[in-house]
Amino acid sequence: MTMRLYSMPSSGNSYKVRLLLALTGRDCELVDVEDASDALIAAKADGALPFGKAPVLHLDDGRMLPESNAILTWLGDGTAFVPDDAFARAQMLSWMFWEQNQHEGVIAVRAALRSYPSRAHLATPERMADLLKRGHALLAVMEERLAARDWLVGDGASLADICLYAYTHTAGSRGGFDMAGFPAVCAWIERVAALPGYVGLDG
Amino acid sequence: MTMRLYSMPSSGNSYKVRLLLALTGRDCELVDVEDASDALIAAKADGALPFGKAPVLHLDDGRMLPESNAILTWLGDGTAFVPDDAFARAQMLSWMFWEQNQHEGVIAVRAALRSYPSRAHLATPERMADLLKRGHALLAVMEERLAARDWLVGDGASLADICLYAYTHTAGSRGGFDMAGFPAVCAWIERVAALPGYVGLDG
Repeated sequence: MTMRLYSMPSSGNSYKVRLLLALTGRDCELVDVEDASDALIAAKADGALPFGKAPVLHLDDGRMLPESNAILTWLGDGTAFVPDDAFARAQMLSWMFWEQNQHEGVIAVRAALRSYPSRAHLATPERMADLLKRGHALLAVMEERLAARDWLVGDGASLADICLYAYTHTAGSRGGFDMAGFPAVCAWIERVAALPGYVGLDG
Repeated sequence: MTMRLYSMPSSGNSYKVRLLLALTGRDCELVDVEDASDALIAAKADGALPFGKAPVLHLDDGRMLPESNAILTWLGDGTAFVPDDAFARAQMLSWMFWEQNQHEGVIAVRAALRSYPSRAHLATPERMADLLKRGHALLAVMEERLAARDWLVGDGASLADICLYAYTHTAGSRGGFDMAGFPAVCAWIERVAALPGYVGLDG
């Protein structure tokens, strides 16, 4: 089966899908649709991005699947990154919904406000300070969880780890968060990066 | 199995779990933790709310599951509200992640700013106007999907419909959105409310 992933190279949401593809050794054609690019505008006009944003997975029969974490569940089905136990799978989804509802809107948004010139006018000092405080509180939730265990759910890496790694591993460099206060999170970041087949955000 | 749901009576995220429990005829003890209540403060202090918010499902063996949509997947497993087809299940999760990442942060947030006195100071005219515009764009995504089909995914009601119904059915009354522009969404709201076993937000 040939698949095509519409992927924004600089985006953690797109990266988490590329990371799972690499970790599971699956081939997939990539179509780069960087922020504010002509390719992104064209893809939107073509109807290739149902919710108006990347990533979107296209199957060879034309079916399209948007939302990074839903794509992870589809690609992860039957792999070692989805636990066998039903409650562990629900816990995995719990972390993934938390990532989209809480973590991304703070950790990724602060990084985007610092990284993308098109959004710089939104980066007021008050907003950046508020995002910094809220981001440290979210990282503390992960720190508490990872202080006593290697992975977020179960005994091995799951989709929850791949999902949360995407924006957490650049929270210091891109988001400006102080990672020194979160040693268990930092150790977990190294653990993910040591997984066989790992690729970084820049390929 | 006795279960206990920590539930915020006025919250759509808690309501969607109560709705699935009613639609599937399952018993569950409810612990009300309304916004800004002593019960909510006590539940947080007790460690009953792992991510600091309701809803959280407690199993009789002490295991806890936070995040409304993860609770839906756990309770919905094996019911008619989860499609048999793997791709349909991924599409269902796609709508549920979209709900937590896009829809809730606009539709529910605007309603909360209008409803909860503790948040009124955040409801600046600029923010309310921005949320109104963005909410209408999100409702347009649902309108386009529902214009040609009865349910968001597959041939019957799924967790995606229960999930998105929670904040959409009060988008007009609580959120101040103009629902007249979204007739397919309004027809779908009536369809959900006609499901056997349905209960409303207020019980």
